[in-house]
Amino acid sequence: MASPGSGFWSFGSENGSGDSDNPGTARAWCQVAQKFTGGIGNKLCALLYGDAEKPAESGGSQPPRVAARKAACACDQKPCSCPKADVNYGFLHATDLLPACDGERPTLAFLQDVMNILLQYVVKSFDRSTKVIDFHYPNELLQEYNWELADQPQNLEDILMHCQTTLKYAIKTGHPRYFNQLSTGLDMVGLAADWLTSTANTNMFTYEIAPVFVLLEYVTLKKMREIIGWPGGSGDGIFSPGGAISNMYAMMIARFKMFPEVKEKGMAAVPRLIAFTSEHSHFSLKKGAAALGIGTDSVILIKCDESHCQDQCHGSFPLCFLLVTVSGLRGKMIPSDLERRILEAKQKGFVPFLVSATAGTTVYGAFDPLLAVADICKKYKIWMHVDAAWGGGLLMSRKHKWKLSGVERANSVTWNPHKMMGVPLQCSALLVREEGLMQNCNQMHASYLFQQDKHYDLSYDTGDKALQCGRHVDVFKLWLMWRAKGTTGFEAHVDKCLELAEYLYNIIKNREGYEMVFDGKPQHTNVCFWYIPPSLRTLEDNEERMSRLSKVAPVIKARMMEYGTTMVSYQPLGDKVNFFRMVISNPAATHQDIDFLIEEIERLGQDL
Amino acid sequence: MASPGSGFWSFGSENGSGDSDNPGTARAWCQVAQKFTGGIGNKLCALLYGDAEKPAESGGSQPPRVAARKAACACDQKPCSCPKADVNYGFLHATDLLPACDGERPTLAFLQDVMNILLQYVVKSFDRSTKVIDFHYPNELLQEYNWELADQPQNLEDILMHCQTTLKYAIKTGHPRYFNQLSTGLDMVGLAADWLTSTANTNMFTYEIAPVFVLLEYVTLKKMREIIGWPGGSGDGIFSPGGAISNMYAMMIARFKMFPEVKEKGMAAVPRLIAFTSEHSHFSLKKGAAALGIGTDSVILIKCDESHCQDQCHGSFPLCFLLVTVSGLRGKMIPSDLERRILEAKQKGFVPFLVSATAGTTVYGAFDPLLAVADICKKYKIWMHVDAAWGGGLLMSRKHKWKLSGVERANSVTWNPHKMMGVPLQCSALLVREEGLMQNCNQMHASYLFQQDKHYDLSYDTGDKALQCGRHVDVFKLWLMWRAKGTTGFEAHVDKCLELAEYLYNIIKNREGYEMVFDGKPQHTNVCFWYIPPSLRTLEDNEERMSRLSKVAPVIKARMMEYGTTMVSYQPLGDKVNFFRMVISNPAATHQDIDFLIEEIERLGQDL
Repeated sequence: MASPGSGFWSFGSENGSGDSDNPGTARAWCQVAQKFTGGIGNKLCALLYGDAEKPAESGGSQPPRVAARKAACACDQKPCSCPKADVNYGFLHATDLLPACDGERPTLAFLQDVMNILLQYVVKSFDRSTKVIDFHYPNELLQEYNWELADQPQNLEDILMHCQTTLKYAIKTGHPRYFNQLSTGLDMVGLAADWLTSTANTNMFTYEIAPVFVLLEYVTLKKMREIIGWPGGSGDGIFSPGGAISNMYAMMIARFKMFPEVKEKGMAAVPRLIAFTSEHSHFSLKKGAAALGIGTDSVILIKCDESHCQDQCHGSFPLCFLLVTVSGLRGKMIPSDLERRILEAKQKGFVPFLVSATAGTTVYGAFDPLLAVADICKKYKIWMHVDAAWGGGLLMSRKHKWKLSGVERANSVTWNPHKMMGVPLQCSALLVREEGLMQNCNQMHASYLFQQDKHYDLSYDTGDKALQCGRHVDVFKLWLMWRAKGTTGFEAHVDKCLELAEYLYNIIKNREGYEMVFDGKPQHTNVCFWYIPPSLRTLEDNEERMSRLSKVAPVIKARMMEYGTTMVSYQPLGDKVNFFRMVISNPAATHQDIDFLIEEIERLGQDL
Repeated sequence: MASPGSGFWSFGSENGSGDSDNPGTARAWCQVAQKFTGGIGNKLCALLYGDAEKPAESGGSQPPRVAARKAACACDQKPCSCPKADVNYGFLHATDLLPACDGERPTLAFLQDVMNILLQYVVKSFDRSTKVIDFHYPNELLQEYNWELADQPQNLEDILMHCQTTLKYAIKTGHPRYFNQLSTGLDMVGLAADWLTSTANTNMFTYEIAPVFVLLEYVTLKKMREIIGWPGGSGDGIFSPGGAISNMYAMMIARFKMFPEVKEKGMAAVPRLIAFTSEHSHFSLKKGAAALGIGTDSVILIKCDESHCQDQCHGSFPLCFLLVTVSGLRGKMIPSDLERRILEAKQKGFVPFLVSATAGTTVYGAFDPLLAVADICKKYKIWMHVDAAWGGGLLMSRKHKWKLSGVERANSVTWNPHKMMGVPLQCSALLVREEGLMQNCNQMHASYLFQQDKHYDLSYDTGDKALQCGRHVDVFKLWLMWRAKGTTGFEAHVDKCLELAEYLYNIIKNREGYEMVFDGKPQHTNVCFWYIPPSLRTLEDNEERMSRLSKVAPVIKARMMEYGTTMVSYQPLGDKVNFFRMVISNPAATHQDIDFLIEEIERLGQDL
């Protein structure tokens, strides 16, 4: 590993023959430094050469580029007499950086060297010959390195080393063979935007302190609502810290819409409320119900069509087969069961207040039948929420958006651009059809933030509609990526990932040693399968085989991580023992990476 | 503004005499490029010169620095025949960046040019001759620039321009004269760490996908608990998306501790719960109560000592004066009122379940008497939460930590390092004394994330104790800053900010044209005051004067923003009309900046 001190800006050297003694190098640096945007180069050059020797300033009427080169020439013609330009991080501390006096040069050097470490990591992330992860067990990592916090400061050389070490042991989430989560990949424009967001270091509560970001949130949420299909993109929304919180917002707003008194009086003032969602839905619905004082018992899980094919096709084999293969019916909420459970709840005197349909379930990638759900919600006057955290990205694709038909009838939608659209974490939106409801539900009128006598249009002070006070700027990376890719760029990404999933499905569906967890083409990029090692292939389908099969995926996964070659998730579901859940959202993945995954599973699992 | 295309890496030029025709410049660049850490320089140099002409690779046994210089010399000796090294962003799109084939060179160029824009912004942020904000009204910003999202992609030149434009209109939150919020300043190590966090782009749910970050969260939370004073640093905690959410977590956990059945059964299954907090506490307590189904009516606001001095000193003037000046009694919860309201609630058959004491109120910076509150909580068996979002930083100071005496008796503590400790946004911790409670309160056992048959110690899969599913990595910037500054570095920062606040207080307390909102030395860095323009100084203290005074701060603030010279917050509070609330957490601020603020207020307000 390169020494952190040997970075781009370290003109001094530890081996006794420092470059600063070599006028050529300082000159070379100076020439290049001139090319920095915005005059930083001139400034640094002046620092290198000392004020007396600083290159001529840009002439007023000359274009900046010409002026910059002229300045560089001026350096060329002088023998270097600049002060020793060492940046020896071993002697520097955080207190030497800006805002310290004379902190500019070490700051620029330090930040540039951090950047070099990051650029190196970015390049490596996309290199298939590097590991996805250099895995160490927790106790190993704790022993190999001292992570403890102390009273005394460390020098900047140590700090740069910590950056390198942290990345050494990190997951390369941009690696073409990283498939472990719904959020994978590393988008370069998104990354740049996130760096900018960190540098701006502000908060979303008011226009006053986040003017551009507040406007971009307005523009972006409106565009997302247009894509959902709400007339004119009208409505409301917010970027929240993840899909679970977005779903919780939806529950809160639905409850408030029906019983606004709950805000002051609490759940004691309202009848027992019941929420409905499918048995394959995300666990955040239950987390939200627990938090909101609704209780997990009041979240009714509606059956999915997997084990209830007869609900759809009345047990008729050809129809069943047709439905499965054409519509990919597997893991979708069964509307008739939803209606049955709603009626049951009403008969008990409870109040159904929310149906959360899932568009893209976490494990199977199934899309609940939104139109049928919308009809039921309309009939019983229930708030319809669509959890499209995972599936929302398909709205960008003309080819696949039909899977969300009916989403335009929802009252609220969760849509996480940090999943299928590849936006860096975190970026989750909650969209609400009715304007003003969020504000009424959450506002507390803190006068120290939301003064009513400000000099600008207060409708841009959006902080009071949030559950949070401070709120991280999550919008800029999505906005900048959208500008860079266009809607068509997101579409191409989504289409490519779905095509790759189909490619995987087509390879393994009839391949020896594989069993699919659900039949039919996947609707999203989720491909769920068991790998059956040779030793299990001839066994009868009994308990012992199940027990042995349940251990296969965990062992293969552990080996994958130890080799660091690829990563894919596994899990049990209901009575199904551990299976692999492959998902593809990674823009770096290719057909070859899918081939590699299959070969790797077989290589690592054949002896089991 | 420099053209985005004229960045560091743009060897081509728009004016017809490209640098790529100049072998000297390419050579100069190559020499400097060699200094990149980790071999990126070599790689880029090879790209510049083409593979045939690439500099010699580092010799195996030579130290890297020597090898790098030798490679540079090799370039020197050859006339440049490298391919045209243009990176013309006008012709490049996001699709040309990694993971695209041949995407490495444009990616490095693009990210480096983004970085140059950010470095320029960072340097400017600390320059007192630049504006804190280049303020434009929302409709102006919407008209001056096209922010809309379209179907088609834009080229990278546009993207770089958007970065520059976004920063042009942003608040410079690191500017030495930005005092508007509790979170100000821009720490260079924290910034570097946040860039790294973005680059790692992972999620906190499991050790599997965030090995280092999960360990750092463990180490850092333990250290914070040690500083709070819990034996051996034992207990639990989490980094959450802000103080409001941390406070909501505390309410949830307190409720669960008393009535675990609430998780399944909801609030219907438990008696009416009452929370207590002071009238000066943060509005998030009410937001939390509304969300959790407790209801805002069940948050009882306890009186503060400002208007109830007799509660402390029984109306005796000399004692009152002593208490005020020595202890800075203003805006603190009155323990006797707390006890009275607890008894009142119990008499009504309600169940007091939480007292949230504030350590550092938002407006006055007051510290509630934690020891007295702890005694009452113990007596009535109520969960004691301390909202030290703002005041927690004082625990790092040997001089000021006494203000939080008693915090060690709390059951839970909110502490936001992104406020007084200057960590970039967002970084908020909730610390809990009892281990395991968070997990039991929030876990839902999602089997696709928290598989129980993994190959490592599952106690490091901390995601299920969160309310969120995905959770942003907020710990690394705090951890890296702590390593860089040491506890003593945070202490020095806190002490300096408090000293500056006292400096401001001492200047204005007897200065003509100022009235203090509360008497006595501030306990935190909050200094609350009215500026009285000359025209109001001779008026009687009647309604008309109040009405005119209420308009002074908003007008001065609006002018500050239009000039962009400084920013400080104002607000009304109860029957007190708009006053300035100065807070100092900005590490760049000096005595001269405080002097400047006073002069600026007087310059902008003297005609009112």
